[in-house]
Amino acid sequence: MASPTRNPQLRKDPVTNRWVIFSPARAKRPTDFKSKSPANPNTSSNQECPFCIGHEHECAPEIFRIPPDNPDWSIRVIQNLYPALGREVPQHTIDWSPDPGSGLPPWGRVLEGFGFHDVLIESPVHSVQLCDLSPREIGEVLLAHRRRVEQIASYDSIKYVQVFKNHGASAGASLSHSHSQILALPVVPPAVSARLDGTKEYFDKTGKCSICEVQQEDLLIHASSHFISIVPFAATYPFEIWIIPREHSTHFHEIDIEKAVDLGGLLKLMLRKLSLQLNNPPFNFMIQTSPLRVNFSEKPYSHWFLQIVPQLTGVGGFEIGTGCYINPVFPEDAAEVLREVNVSI
Amino acid sequence: MASPTRNPQLRKDPVTNRWVIFSPARAKRPTDFKSKSPANPNTSSNQECPFCIGHEHECAPEIFRIPPDNPDWSIRVIQNLYPALGREVPQHTIDWSPDPGSGLPPWGRVLEGFGFHDVLIESPVHSVQLCDLSPREIGEVLLAHRRRVEQIASYDSIKYVQVFKNHGASAGASLSHSHSQILALPVVPPAVSARLDGTKEYFDKTGKCSICEVQQEDLLIHASSHFISIVPFAATYPFEIWIIPREHSTHFHEIDIEKAVDLGGLLKLMLRKLSLQLNNPPFNFMIQTSPLRVNFSEKPYSHWFLQIVPQLTGVGGFEIGTGCYINPVFPEDAAEVLREVNVSI
Repeated sequence: MASPTRNPQLRKDPVTNRWVIFSPARAKRPTDFKSKSPANPNTSSNQECPFCIGHEHECAPEIFRIPPDNPDWSIRVIQNLYPALGREVPQHTIDWSPDPGSGLPPWGRVLEGFGFHDVLIESPVHSVQLCDLSPREIGEVLLAHRRRVEQIASYDSIKYVQVFKNHGASAGASLSHSHSQILALPVVPPAVSARLDGTKEYFDKTGKCSICEVQQEDLLIHASSHFISIVPFAATYPFEIWIIPREHSTHFHEIDIEKAVDLGGLLKLMLRKLSLQLNNPPFNFMIQTSPLRVNFSEKPYSHWFLQIVPQLTGVGGFEIGTGCYINPVFPEDAAEVLREVNVSI
Repeated sequence: MASPTRNPQLRKDPVTNRWVIFSPARAKRPTDFKSKSPANPNTSSNQECPFCIGHEHECAPEIFRIPPDNPDWSIRVIQNLYPALGREVPQHTIDWSPDPGSGLPPWGRVLEGFGFHDVLIESPVHSVQLCDLSPREIGEVLLAHRRRVEQIASYDSIKYVQVFKNHGASAGASLSHSHSQILALPVVPPAVSARLDGTKEYFDKTGKCSICEVQQEDLLIHASSHFISIVPFAATYPFEIWIIPREHSTHFHEIDIEKAVDLGGLLKLMLRKLSLQLNNPPFNFMIQTSPLRVNFSEKPYSHWFLQIVPQLTGVGGFEIGTGCYINPVFPEDAAEVLREVNVSI
């Protein structure tokens, strides 16, 4: 590339009508894009893994650890070494608006790429996967996510915080040591806007929250004290799972210790069921929460949930072109397959 | 699966607010989803390829061939053996509406899975790829797509026709013999609605078509008599390319012979450049056109184009959760890389 190093940017094209993050810290040279088989991250051993206990100095700066100030930590939250966004609060916003008086071209919009991109190391031990932890330990991971989201929520220009996990190389994990990520954005992303449009439309028609009203009969996999797990009615991906709080709650970071441990158990159960029925597939999970600083008290149509997607099928031209997905497994059938397998947690 | 065979369905979840196609003809049993490496379709030889000349009897029914009634064909359009949608016009529509008087549950919506899913075999010869054909031959492929779209457009219940190509196993191609696909839908898909919302918003503000006005300076790769090829201003994927008609045109199927041959040459040039700079990557192309039976004459904000996406990066939890993409290559840099490589076509 001939260009000098640049700061990250968000751009919105008036054609696709979608923000895209341009991230030079994650840049590769063109030759790095040459098509080849992905490296298997599972080949990295304990000795060379920066997320293992004793290798803390190889990581980007730490934000906090649990327990605090303890070399024998169980969870660490650190900065991502290759962040998608820059954590320096911008001095000048470079938002090109189509305002005729601005003198700037009306075509596209640009925002400075401000945000946070952090990593949560879920265990000090290289070979321990999330579903190997106890419900209480998974609950502590979830509470560490809550704490980091609360810290980030103090920045006015952050509009949405996405918590997610990539497990397996083909699901996007670049290191096999169990971890999840927290990416805080200065915009509300398109899938979140579409979800809120959908639940608002339902609320406006019925006066009810569509997620509180979710059809359970054939779609239920399991119920715990505070959550249910279902295959959604129009699951985008085969064997997709949603874990939904039984009591209406708009934001993930409202979760308390009791609910976090209960969710830990149900998440562990679902990951074990997927692993047994689908041969330890690569998977992602995403916490689908609500934008920050939006008050849903008058129209309570937003309800957070945790989405699990095993990566079993690729994306082709049809999906890229239309945004529409083809799922070969009816949700009722997927729910039955996941209900019937017995696992102990 | 315990369930009996079902007809394809489209379902819309009020939470995601997106249609998903459930397609039993493409169903696999749960064991078929067990995680494993994808088979390499390139291992199939001429002898066992149903798309090769002489193997026509192994395919689903033919729709037309070019030249007609000629055993020495150059292009065949056939039905997909594993169609995502059923081509029988439904007797009863099973659209659950949230109408309180309907007696049906208000939760989700269901449509019968009516539509067409066809395959266009681009050459009779197994080893010939699309970019090996001459501009005129590629033009004939595009005109065959136009003809099939025109045939499908006579069905009132078809709202959108997606023409696309998957090249390479990881881009979704299940057979290596060069082919593209035509999938006709009874709904306008979400990416198309989002695109039209974007271009309409721009038109309402400026009175102009945003695609006619596309910024060219740093983003232009090449211009032909009737088309330009650019890297879009907010490219979702690294090295994404759009080929845009220079003259405003709403629907792909308005293309004439002269323009189809000109587009054939420019498409060949772009595929050659991608192949050289990125080591023959898997790729998709999609024809981004307008919904059928929508009259854009008063508000000419819809303008078709051809989108090419090399598949270089996977999709992880962040992209699934947010619908927002991270692109490590600035569009100006990608355009420069693609401009500077010299290829002859």
